[in-house]
Amino acid sequence: MRELELTGHIIDSGIMTRVLDAILDMGGAFEILTFEVGRQKTDPSYAKFRITAESSDIADQIVSRLHRLGARLVTVDDVKLIPAEADCVVPKGFYSSTNYPTELKYKGIWIPVEKIEMDCLVVVDPHLTRASCTPMQKLKKGDLVVIGEQGLLVHPSERSRDPNDSFEFMHGVVSSERPTETIIAQIASEIRDIHAKGGKVALVGGPAIVHTGAAPALARMIKEGHIDILFAGNALATHDIEYSLFGTSLGMDLKTGKPVAAGHKNHIYAISEVMRAGSIRAAVENNVIRSGIMYEVITKNIPFVLAGSIRDDGPLPDVITDVMEAQDAMRRYVPECSMVIMVATMLHSVAVGNCLPSYVKTICVDINPSTVTKLMDRGTMQAKGVVSDAGTFIPMLLAQLQAMTE
Amino acid sequence: MRELELTGHIIDSGIMTRVLDAILDMGGAFEILTFEVGRQKTDPSYAKFRITAESSDIADQIVSRLHRLGARLVTVDDVKLIPAEADCVVPKGFYSSTNYPTELKYKGIWIPVEKIEMDCLVVVDPHLTRASCTPMQKLKKGDLVVIGEQGLLVHPSERSRDPNDSFEFMHGVVSSERPTETIIAQIASEIRDIHAKGGKVALVGGPAIVHTGAAPALARMIKEGHIDILFAGNALATHDIEYSLFGTSLGMDLKTGKPVAAGHKNHIYAISEVMRAGSIRAAVENNVIRSGIMYEVITKNIPFVLAGSIRDDGPLPDVITDVMEAQDAMRRYVPECSMVIMVATMLHSVAVGNCLPSYVKTICVDINPSTVTKLMDRGTMQAKGVVSDAGTFIPMLLAQLQAMTE
Amino acid sequence: MRELELTGHIIDSGIMTRVLDAILDMGGAFEILTFEVGRQKTDPSYAKFRITAESSDIADQIVSRLHRLGARLVTVDDVKLIPAEADCVVPKGFYSSTNYPTELKYKGIWIPVEKIEMDCLVVVDPHLTRASCTPMQKLKKGDLVVIGEQGLLVHPSERSRDPNDSFEFMHGVVSSERPTETIIAQIASEIRDIHAKGGKVALVGGPAIVHTGAAPALARMIKEGHIDILFAGNALATHDIEYSLFGTSLGMDLKTGKPVAAGHKNHIYAISEVMRAGSIRAAVENNVIRSGIMYEVITKNIPFVLAGSIRDDGPLPDVITDVMEAQDAMRRYVPECSMVIMVATMLHSVAVGNCLPSYVKTICVDINPSTVTKLMDRGTMQAKGVVSDAGTFIPMLLAQLQAMTE
Amino acid sequence: MRELELTGHIIDSGIMTRVLDAILDMGGAFEILTFEVGRQKTDPSYAKFRITAESSDIADQIVSRLHRLGARLVTVDDVKLIPAEADCVVPKGFYSSTNYPTELKYKGIWIPVEKIEMDCLVVVDPHLTRASCTPMQKLKKGDLVVIGEQGLLVHPSERSRDPNDSFEFMHGVVSSERPTETIIAQIASEIRDIHAKGGKVALVGGPAIVHTGAAPALARMIKEGHIDILFAGNALATHDIEYSLFGTSLGMDLKTGKPVAAGHKNHIYAISEVMRAGSIRAAVENNVIRSGIMYEVITKNIPFVLAGSIRDDGPLPDVITDVMEAQDAMRRYVPECSMVIMVATMLHSVAVGNCLPSYVKTICVDINPSTVTKLMDRGTMQAKGVVSDAGTFIPMLLAQLQAMTE
Repeated sequence: MRELELTGHIIDSGIMTRVLDAILDMGGAFEILTFEVGRQKTDPSYAKFRITAESSDIADQIVSRLHRLGARLVTVDDVKLIPAEADCVVPKGFYSSTNYPTELKYKGIWIPVEKIEMDCLVVVDPHLTRASCTPMQKLKKGDLVVIGEQGLLVHPSERSRDPNDSFEFMHGVVSSERPTETIIAQIASEIRDIHAKGGKVALVGGPAIVHTGAAPALARMIKEGHIDILFAGNALATHDIEYSLFGTSLGMDLKTGKPVAAGHKNHIYAISEVMRAGSIRAAVENNVIRSGIMYEVITKNIPFVLAGSIRDDGPLPDVITDVMEAQDAMRRYVPECSMVIMVATMLHSVAVGNCLPSYVKTICVDINPSTVTKLMDRGTMQAKGVVSDAGTFIPMLLAQLQAMTE
Repeated sequence: MRELELTGHIIDSGIMTRVLDAILDMGGAFEILTFEVGRQKTDPSYAKFRITAESSDIADQIVSRLHRLGARLVTVDDVKLIPAEADCVVPKGFYSSTNYPTELKYKGIWIPVEKIEMDCLVVVDPHLTRASCTPMQKLKKGDLVVIGEQGLLVHPSERSRDPNDSFEFMHGVVSSERPTETIIAQIASEIRDIHAKGGKVALVGGPAIVHTGAAPALARMIKEGHIDILFAGNALATHDIEYSLFGTSLGMDLKTGKPVAAGHKNHIYAISEVMRAGSIRAAVENNVIRSGIMYEVITKNIPFVLAGSIRDDGPLPDVITDVMEAQDAMRRYVPECSMVIMVATMLHSVAVGNCLPSYVKTICVDINPSTVTKLMDRGTMQAKGVVSDAGTFIPMLLAQLQAMTE
Repeated sequence: MRELELTGHIIDSGIMTRVLDAILDMGGAFEILTFEVGRQKTDPSYAKFRITAESSDIADQIVSRLHRLGARLVTVDDVKLIPAEADCVVPKGFYSSTNYPTELKYKGIWIPVEKIEMDCLVVVDPHLTRASCTPMQKLKKGDLVVIGEQGLLVHPSERSRDPNDSFEFMHGVVSSERPTETIIAQIASEIRDIHAKGGKVALVGGPAIVHTGAAPALARMIKEGHIDILFAGNALATHDIEYSLFGTSLGMDLKTGKPVAAGHKNHIYAISEVMRAGSIRAAVENNVIRSGIMYEVITKNIPFVLAGSIRDDGPLPDVITDVMEAQDAMRRYVPECSMVIMVATMLHSVAVGNCLPSYVKTICVDINPSTVTKLMDRGTMQAKGVVSDAGTFIPMLLAQLQAMTE
Repeated sequence: MRELELTGHIIDSGIMTRVLDAILDMGGAFEILTFEVGRQKTDPSYAKFRITAESSDIADQIVSRLHRLGARLVTVDDVKLIPAEADCVVPKGFYSSTNYPTELKYKGIWIPVEKIEMDCLVVVDPHLTRASCTPMQKLKKGDLVVIGEQGLLVHPSERSRDPNDSFEFMHGVVSSERPTETIIAQIASEIRDIHAKGGKVALVGGPAIVHTGAAPALARMIKEGHIDILFAGNALATHDIEYSLFGTSLGMDLKTGKPVAAGHKNHIYAISEVMRAGSIRAAVENNVIRSGIMYEVITKNIPFVLAGSIRDDGPLPDVITDVMEAQDAMRRYVPECSMVIMVATMLHSVAVGNCLPSYVKTICVDINPSTVTKLMDRGTMQAKGVVSDAGTFIPMLLAQLQAMTE
C-alpha cells in the first residue's frame, strides 16, 4: 500500500486519466482519498489516492510508472544514492531520466536536475549540491547515482490551451492529408515568435535537402537569421558544397535533373577542396566556397555540428568522426534550442531527439510518415510530423518567413 | 449556460479528460458542480458540470461535441424531428451519427438506434417507434430526420481492462517495429475466441494477397472455417481464379516469381471462363475452378461481396458494378461481423470501415503504414494497424490457427 | 524455326537487346542472318534472324513475345480471325493488345488498329475494313476476334533523343531525392508546349488535393486554361465543394489545420446542396457554388468524369456509380489527351492508365513512391513518378505556369 | 574523333545499347566501323566505332562514360599517373573507380585493380607493380594516382542467362506485390549454393530484427551456419542482448507485444552488464549472455563489425565509435563475401553497399521500398529489393533453410 498525490491541471491535461490507466493496466487497484477538482479553467486540481497490488514489487513498479506522470509519495524522503562501482557500469535499480523537467530532494531540499535528457542516469554532486542527467558512457566510478524514484518529482508536459498558439496545429495521426501551406505558415509564425522572445531555432537536415533542390532556400533562411544552429552530417555539407562548386548534387545537375558527365566525381572534388583549405571556414575565407548552406553558416557564424556516419565519403575535415564526441558536440548546443526543425533525415533526427528536453518544440518533416513514428517510438513524444517534400517545403517556408517580415 | 452530466468509467476511460479538453479547445469554460469519483476499479463515476461560452452558438457547438463523448443535458427532452423536403436532401442541423451505440428519446421513452454506422442521418419511424441510421442517398422525402443532439445519448467505447484480452496488443503509433509473430498469435487467438462465442470474422482482401503468394493459405483458412465472410473486389477474385487455372497472378508464375510467356492474357481467360459458366459458383460446379480462395468460399458457402471498381478488367459476372448497390450488399453482412481483418487493400478497407460500428474488432494489415492512418482519418478509429507483408502474414496466421486447434 | 525481321532505331532504342534477351530468356536460340547497322544517328538499322527452340510451342511463344517488340515474321500473312462464341467469352489464343500503336494486315492491306488500349481484344469489322481494341466486356457474339500475332505489327515507343525535350527528366528509379522545383518547371514547360501544339492536358486527381490545401491552386490552373479534362471521383468533387461552401475539407478548417465544430457534417451538407440543385452545373448556375475546382470546371466548360467508388458518401448526382459506365466515360476523353497528370490517387490513376496509349505523356505525383510502381506493374510503363506533396506541388506548378506566361 | 572497341556479349547484355545511348545523350555522334555479331548464344560480338563531338572536351567526356561500360580506345597507352600533392587531396582529373572488376595497363602490361570499390581513387604502387582502389581519406602525399581513363578497362556485369540461377528472380521495379515465399525459397537456395561452393554470406541487420521478434530465428540461422559475417550497429546488438537478458526489446515484451514496467531501463542494464564484463565475448564466456544473435556469433566465432552511430546509447564496448575505423573494419571482411543480405537498416546497408564490388549478390529486405531505391541511387545497382517484414521474413527464411537440409 502506497499513498500518492498529484497536483496541477491533472484533469484537463489528461494526466489523472493516465495515472489511473497505469494503475489498472499494471494490475493494481486504487482508492481515491481526496479529489479536489479545479472548478474553473485556471484552478489546479489535487488528488490523493492509495494504491494496492498483489505484491510489494508490483506496487513499486506502479509507483515508478506514476512518478513519470508527476505523482509523488505523500511523504517525500531524500533521494537514495549509490556510488557507481566502475566506469560505465550502472547500479541496480538506477533511476532512468525522462525528458521532462525534474526536481529531486537532497538533504531535505528540492534542487532541479540539470541537463535534462531521457534515458540517462541522475548523478548528484554532494559538494556543489547539484544534480544532472548523465549518459551511461560518462558515468565514472564513484559517481553518486540516484536509485529508485524516491525523492524525485517530474513535471510532465501540459499542452498549451492558448488558441493563438500556432504550434498546436497537429492532431492525432501523422498524415499526408493535412493542409501543407497552412502548416508551413504556422511554423513560420512560430519561428518568428521564438525569435521575438530571444529563443533559438535549430535545423537538423539531411542531404535530401540538397538533392531536392532546396539548398538555396535553406541558405537564404540562414542568411536572413531564421536558423540559429545547424545539426547535420557529412552528406548535407558535402553535397551543399558540391552544389556550390559544380551545380550538381550526387552528380545530378539540379537545374536539369539529369546526371552530368563525370558528375559522380564532383562530391569527391568538393571534399578534396575543403581538405586542401583545411576546413570549411578556411574554404569560405579563401573564396573556394562562395554560396550555399555552409557558406551562410560560416558567414553568419552560427554554430554547427557535422556528425560522422559509417556511410560517409571523405569525410570533410569538420566532420566529427567519433560518434560519441559528435553526441557531446550536439549536447553543447541543445540547451539553447527553443525549437528544432528536422528535415529529411531519420538518423540525425533521432540523435538530436534523444538529447532534447520535452519542452523543446520539435517538428519533423519527412516524405515518409514512418520517420516521425520512429522518433516517437524512441521517446521524442513531443515531435510533430509533417509529411511533405523537402524540395517544396523549404522554399515555401522561406517564402512565408519573407512575407511575414515585409 | 448549459448543464450536462456524464456517468460511467469516465475517469479511467479518459472520457472526462476529453470532455474538459473539448470545452476549453472550443473556447468555452466549465464549472464542475458535482464530481463523484468511483473509488474502486469497478465503481462508475458521475460528473455534473455547467458550460458557459461567449455565445449561445458556441455553447451549442460544445454540447454537440460533448454529446459524441456520451454527455447529456441534465434535462432530456425528446429528439427533434423534421421531415426531409426531398429525396437525398438533408435538413439543416441534421444529427450526424457516430459509429458508437446510440439511444434516442422518442415520445418519452429511450429506444436504440439501429444499423449503427457513422456519418449517417438518424430517421425515426413513428409507426414502428424505431430509429435507424440512414445514409443520405437512401433518404426519402418525408422521412423524419433527427435534428440536433437533443434526446440522443451515445455510448463511446471504453477500452478493455482485461489483461487476457489479446486484442489490446497495440499501443499508440502504427509501426513496423512490433513483434509480428506475437501479434499474429494474438490475432489467431482472438479469431478462435470469437468463434467460440459464435461470432463471425470477415476478411477484406486485396489482390496483393494473390500476387504475394498467400492465396493458398487464405483458401485454407476459409476451408478450415476461420473466415466467415469475404469482402473483396474483382481483382482478388480474378487473380485467385487466374492462379487456380494457370498458376500465375497478373501473368507472373508464383512458383518462380517470373513472368510467363503470354501470361498477361491469363486473367482475361480466367474471367472469360467464368463468363462462359455464368458465375463463379457455376464455374466451381462445372469443375472449371478446382482450388483457391473463391473455390473454398463457394464450397463452404460463405457469403461474399465483390464490389466493382473503375480499374476493373472484365469484370467477373459476380462483381457488383454499381458501387451503391455494392455498398448495400456489404451493409447486409456487416451487422454479423464481430471482427474484420483487412489485408492489403485501402479501397475496400475504407469502404467496409465506413459501415462498421465502433465495437467491431478491426485489424488492418498493410505493408504501408499510411493505410491504417487513412482508415483512422476516415473515422474507423478502432482500427489497429499491423505493418507487414500479406505474403508472409497470412501463411503465418494460418500456421498459428492450425497450431491452436491441434 | 522461324525467320523474323526488325527495322528502325533498333540498336539505340534498346529494342534489339530486348529481342535477343527475350529469345534467350525463353529458352530459344538465335542465328543472325543479316544485320545492317545504321552508321549514323539518323539511319535506321535492319536485322533478320532465325529462331530455334526445343518445341514448336516455345517457338510460337517467342514469336508472340517478339511481336510485342515490333518484330514480324518475314513473310506476313493476313491476321487470323475467329468469331466470338458468346458475349464476353474470348476465343482461345486471342491476341491481347499492347498500348503501342499497332497495324494489322487484313485482306492483303495494312490497316491501323483504332482505340489503342492495353489488354484488349482486337476486333475486325469486315464491312468497314476497320479494326479496333475492344475490352472483353464489350465483346459481342460473332465479333471477329484476332487470334495469334500473325499479320500484326506493333511500334514500340522509341525514347526521345531531343536534348530539349523537357519530358526526359527522370531516369531509372522513382526517388524522393530529385530536384522538385526543376521537375515542376519541366512539367510546366511541357504543358505549355502541348498547348502550343493544340494538345490537351488531363488531370486525374484525388481528394488529398483538397485536404492538403491545393484546391485553390488547381482551380486557378483550370481557370487559366492549363487543364483541359478532369478525371476524378466523388471525394475530390465533394471536398472541393465542401471547401467552397464551408472552408473545410473532411471537417478540417484548411486555414487553421484544425477540425471545426460539427465539421464532419459539412461534406454531407455539400452533397445535399448539390442534390437539391440537381447537379454540380445547376449548383454553380444557382450561385450555390461560387469557387473551387468544380466551379472552374463548370465555368470553363471543360469535360469531367466523376467515377464512383465503393467508399463514396452520397454520392454527388454527377458521379457515375456504375464503374463500367464510368470506364466508358473515361474512354470517351482519353483519345484527346496528349498528357495526363495524376495527383494523389492510386485508384483513378490506375484506371485512367489502363486506357492510355503508350505515347501519352504520363506524370504520376504522389507522396508514396509505391503508387507509381503499381502503375508500372499494371502496364502503364510510360508513367514517370514524382515523389512529392500535392499541397506544395500544385501551388508551385501554378506559380511556374504563371511565371511562364508573364 | 576517337576510335573505340568493345567485345563480349555486348548485344544481349544490353551494353551496346547503353554505349550508343550514351554517345547520343551526351551530344556526340557515332559511326560504326566494324560490327561482328555473335551468331549464336555463345559467341562474343565485336564492335569498332568512331565518335565525333562538337568539342574535344565533349569527346573526352563521352570516352570517359563509355569506359565505364567496358569500351576502350583502340590503341591503349599506359595509365597516366600523378602524385598526390597532399594527404587526402585528389588530383584534377582523377579516375574515379566503379564497382566493376577493372584492369589497368602499366609499363605495357595489364594488371588487375585490387580492393574494388566504387568512388575511390586508383593508386599504383610502382615498386610492387600493383594497383588498388583507395578511398580519398587514405590518400597519402606522393601516392601515384591514376588520371583519366587511358589505360583502364572495366568489365561491367553481364547478367546471368542460366535459367536455373535462382538469383535472377526479380525484374524491374521494387514492389510489394511479389510472391514472398517463392523469393524466400530462392534466397535460401542461393545461400546453400554459395556455401556449397565455399563462398560466404554476410548479413547486415538493423534493430528492427529484434523489435519484430526475429532475433531467435536469426540466432538459429547463425548457429546452423547459414551466416558467416555480421555487420550491424550498437542497436541490433544491444536490443538482442536486452532480449536475451530480459525478454524485451526497447522495453517491449516480445512475448506479449506490450511494454513492461521499467522496461525502458533494460537496454541500459544490458549495455552495463557487457561493460562490466568488458566485451560481448567476455559476457558470453561469463554466462551473462546465454542466447541470441550475439551469443551465436561469439559461440560460432564468426567475424562481426558493430559500427557506431550518433544515435547510440552506451554504446557497447565492442562498438567502433569512430566511423572511419568502422568502415575499415567492414572493408576487411567485404572481400570474403559472395552474398550480402541486408535486413531492415538503411544506414548500414548503404555503408556496406558502398564497399561492395558489383559481383557480390546483394539482397535488400525492407518494409519500405524506398530503402532499396536509395541503395541504388548511391550506386549499389546490383541490389535486389524484397519488400517484406523482418519479423516474418527471417523466420520463414530459416524454415526454408531447414527444410532444405533435411
